[in-house]
Amino acid sequence: MREPTVTTRRRWLGWTAALGAGLSGCTRSKPGEDAGPGLLGKPVSAYGERSPYETSTRQMVDTRYPETSISRTPLQDSCGILTPSSLHYERHHSGVPRIDPAHHELLIHGLVDRPLVFTVDEIKRLPHISRIYFLECSGNGFGEWSEKTGRDAAQSHGLASCSEWTGVPLSLLLAEAGVQKQAKWLIAEGADACKMQRSLPIEKALNDTLVAWGQNGEALRPEQGYPLRLIVPGWEGNISVKWLRRIKAVDQPYMVRDETSHYTDLMPDGTARIFTFPMEAKSVITFPSGGQKLNGTGFYQITGLAWSGKGRIERVEVSTDSGQTWRDASLQEPRLPIAFSRFYLPWNWDGKETGLQSRAIDETGYVQPSRDALIAVRGVNSYYHYNGIKSWKVRPDGSVTNA
Amino acid sequence: MREPTVTTRRRWLGWTAALGAGLSGCTRSKPGEDAGPGLLGKPVSAYGERSPYETSTRQMVDTRYPETSISRTPLQDSCGILTPSSLHYERHHSGVPRIDPAHHELLIHGLVDRPLVFTVDEIKRLPHISRIYFLECSGNGFGEWSEKTGRDAAQSHGLASCSEWTGVPLSLLLAEAGVQKQAKWLIAEGADACKMQRSLPIEKALNDTLVAWGQNGEALRPEQGYPLRLIVPGWEGNISVKWLRRIKAVDQPYMVRDETSHYTDLMPDGTARIFTFPMEAKSVITFPSGGQKLNGTGFYQITGLAWSGKGRIERVEVSTDSGQTWRDASLQEPRLPIAFSRFYLPWNWDGKETGLQSRAIDETGYVQPSRDALIAVRGVNSYYHYNGIKSWKVRPDGSVTNA
Repeated sequence: MREPTVTTRRRWLGWTAALGAGLSGCTRSKPGEDAGPGLLGKPVSAYGERSPYETSTRQMVDTRYPETSISRTPLQDSCGILTPSSLHYERHHSGVPRIDPAHHELLIHGLVDRPLVFTVDEIKRLPHISRIYFLECSGNGFGEWSEKTGRDAAQSHGLASCSEWTGVPLSLLLAEAGVQKQAKWLIAEGADACKMQRSLPIEKALNDTLVAWGQNGEALRPEQGYPLRLIVPGWEGNISVKWLRRIKAVDQPYMVRDETSHYTDLMPDGTARIFTFPMEAKSVITFPSGGQKLNGTGFYQITGLAWSGKGRIERVEVSTDSGQTWRDASLQEPRLPIAFSRFYLPWNWDGKETGLQSRAIDETGYVQPSRDALIAVRGVNSYYHYNGIKSWKVRPDGSVTNA
Repeated sequence: MREPTVTTRRRWLGWTAALGAGLSGCTRSKPGEDAGPGLLGKPVSAYGERSPYETSTRQMVDTRYPETSISRTPLQDSCGILTPSSLHYERHHSGVPRIDPAHHELLIHGLVDRPLVFTVDEIKRLPHISRIYFLECSGNGFGEWSEKTGRDAAQSHGLASCSEWTGVPLSLLLAEAGVQKQAKWLIAEGADACKMQRSLPIEKALNDTLVAWGQNGEALRPEQGYPLRLIVPGWEGNISVKWLRRIKAVDQPYMVRDETSHYTDLMPDGTARIFTFPMEAKSVITFPSGGQKLNGTGFYQITGLAWSGKGRIERVEVSTDSGQTWRDASLQEPRLPIAFSRFYLPWNWDGKETGLQSRAIDETGYVQPSRDALIAVRGVNSYYHYNGIKSWKVRPDGSVTNA
C-alpha cells in the first residue's frame, strides 16, 4: 500500500481547513440523525445495473450515418485506470454487427501450410492470457490540430479507454497454420458489413498481438468486437480489427480501402506518412477539466491519465501556472506497460485565473510535446496522431474551459 | 509481454493436433465464404450492454427474504482477474437501499477532537487512490464444511470478486477529525435499513482502509455500497461496510448485533473464535469446473483463481491426478497483493476419470490446506472461513462434477 505523498504532510493543519469555502457543509454531528432511508431495499439480482443517479454517458457525435460514427469515453468522470465496458469508446465503419458466436468462425489462410478455420469455442479452448491495455483511436483529439475544439476531456481525449483483455496469442494460431517465411504482412478482416480490413506487419503479429475474446472479466462487448477481435497493443485502434473473421498471410501490405481513404498523415511538404502505427505518449488532466466547476478556492487534488503505446509511463509533470513551472505528479502503482497510468498532484487554488497542463514521459524517454512543437514538425494538415499537451483554463469564477 | 511457457514448446506438433476430437470442426477454408451478416449494424450508443448471446448471471440463493440473501459471482465463466461490476457477488442484510448521493452524508464522531460530517462531494474532493482488491464473504464456501455441496465454482467460491476500488484513505479522515489516543476501535455503520455495523480495530483503519466511492472506473454500484463504502483490504467482506454513513471512534469493540448473531467460528472444543478478520489463501479451478463438460480427450488449458488476504499469491500448484502429484501453474503478471491472481496449467486429458485440484501459497509462506487438514483443526461446526482445497471430478464422458 502506498499513499500519495500528499497525505503525509501537514496532517495537523488539516485537509478540511485547506478545502476552504468548499467545505462549508462540514458541520458538527447531529447524533441520532438518520441519513439512511430506513426502508427494506432491493433484493439480490442476476445482473446488476448502475445507480439511477449516475448519468455519465459516452459522448456521441452526430454524423449523417450513426453507424459510421464515434462515441467517446467520458474521461472527465473517470477514476482509476479502468474504463467500464459500457463506456468504452466506439469507432465503427458500418455499425455494430449482431453476431451469434455459435456461427462465427475465424479463417487463417494465405501463405500458410495449413489453412484453418476456428470456431469461437475452439479459440477459447487454446492457451490464453490476460493483459490490461489501453486502446486509442488514431483520430483521438483530431479537433486539437487546428481549432483546439476539445471543450471537455471526452471531446479532446475520449477516443481512448483501458480494459483487461483476454485472448490467445496470435503467434500460436500462426504457428499452428504453419505461416510461411515469405509471409511479411497479414491482412485482418472484420465481419462488419464493410469488412473492415487492415494490413499488419508479421513482426508485431508474432510479438504481442492477441486474438481476444474477453474484456474486463466477461465476453467482449458487441461494440468492442464480440465475439473475437485483434488486440494490437499500443498501436492505433483501427488495426485491432473487431468482429475478426479472417487473417490472410501475405507478402506485402495490401493498401486496403482504409489505408488509402483513412489513416495516413499529411505532412507540411505534401507527402503523406502511412503505417504510423504506434500511439505516442500522451496525457490529459481529467479533474479539473473543461466543463467542470471548482467550488471556491482551496485544496484540490488534480488528477488525470497518461499512456504510451511504447511501454510504461515513467513520469508525468503537471503545471498549475500555464506551463511556466512543472512539478512531478505521483503515479498510481503498478504502472503497467501500454496501459492507462493515473496521476495525482495536490493543488491549492488561490482563486486567480490560470492554466493547468500535464506532460507525459514514457520509459523510452519520449517527452509529450507542446502543441507548437508538434505542429512545427507535423504542420496542421494532419487528422491523426495528435498528442500535444492539453491546457485547461481555470477562471476566477471556478469554471474550467478549453484554453 | 510474457507468454505462458506452454506456448513455446512442441510448436510444430501443433495445438490443434493436441486438441484431438475437440477440433473436428477445424476444416480447410472455403475462400470467399462470408462469415459476417453483411448488414449495417447498430449505431453508436450512450451506455453499452453485453451481447444478448451472453447469459451468465449471478447465482441467486432462494431465501425466505430475498433482501437478506446472497448472490454469487459465476467464477466458472470468468477470465482475467477482474469481476464485471454487474456480476460482483452480493450479501445484504436488508436489501440494497436507493440512496441519492446529494442527500447522503458520512459522520465521523466519538473519541475525536472534531466530529465532522462529510457530503459525498466533499469526500470525492479529498486525495484519493485506486487499488485492485478482491472482496470475499467470510461465508464463501460454507457448504463445503459438511457436505461439499459446491456443484460449480459459483456455489463453492462465488462469494468472492475482484475490482479496482477508488477512495480516500480512512487515515486521512480520522486525522482530520483528530482521532484521540484512547480510540482503539471504530464502529462503522451502513445506511441500509438494518444499519449494518461492524467493529474495526484502529490499526487496520489507519493502515490501508479506504472510504471508497469508485469501482472499476465509475461510481460504486448500488449493490456494492453506492455512494460510499469501506474497503478493508483482505478482511472478511462484511467489515467493508456498504452505504457507509457513520464511523464512531470508541475504546473497545462494541459486540454489535452481527458480531454475536454472525461472524464467529465455533471450534471443536465448543469455544468460539471472534474477530477472525483476515481471509486466508484460497484457490479454485474455474475451468474445467463443476457443471462444465470436456469435448473429448486432448489438450485443455486448466485455469483458475487464487487469492490471499495477507498479500500476494506466491505460487499455485495444480494436481491432475486427484492430489497424488502437483505441478506449478503459471501465474498472470503482475501479481497484485490482496487481489485475484489468475493461474494456468496445460493438460492433456487421456479420457480417464480423474480429479483436478489447486493449492495456493501466499507470500507469507502459508499453504492452502486440504479439507481434512482444515477440519482437523477447525472441526465441522464452523460456517465461516472455509479455505480447503477444492477437487473437481472429471468423468470419462467429459462431464465435470463436485468431487
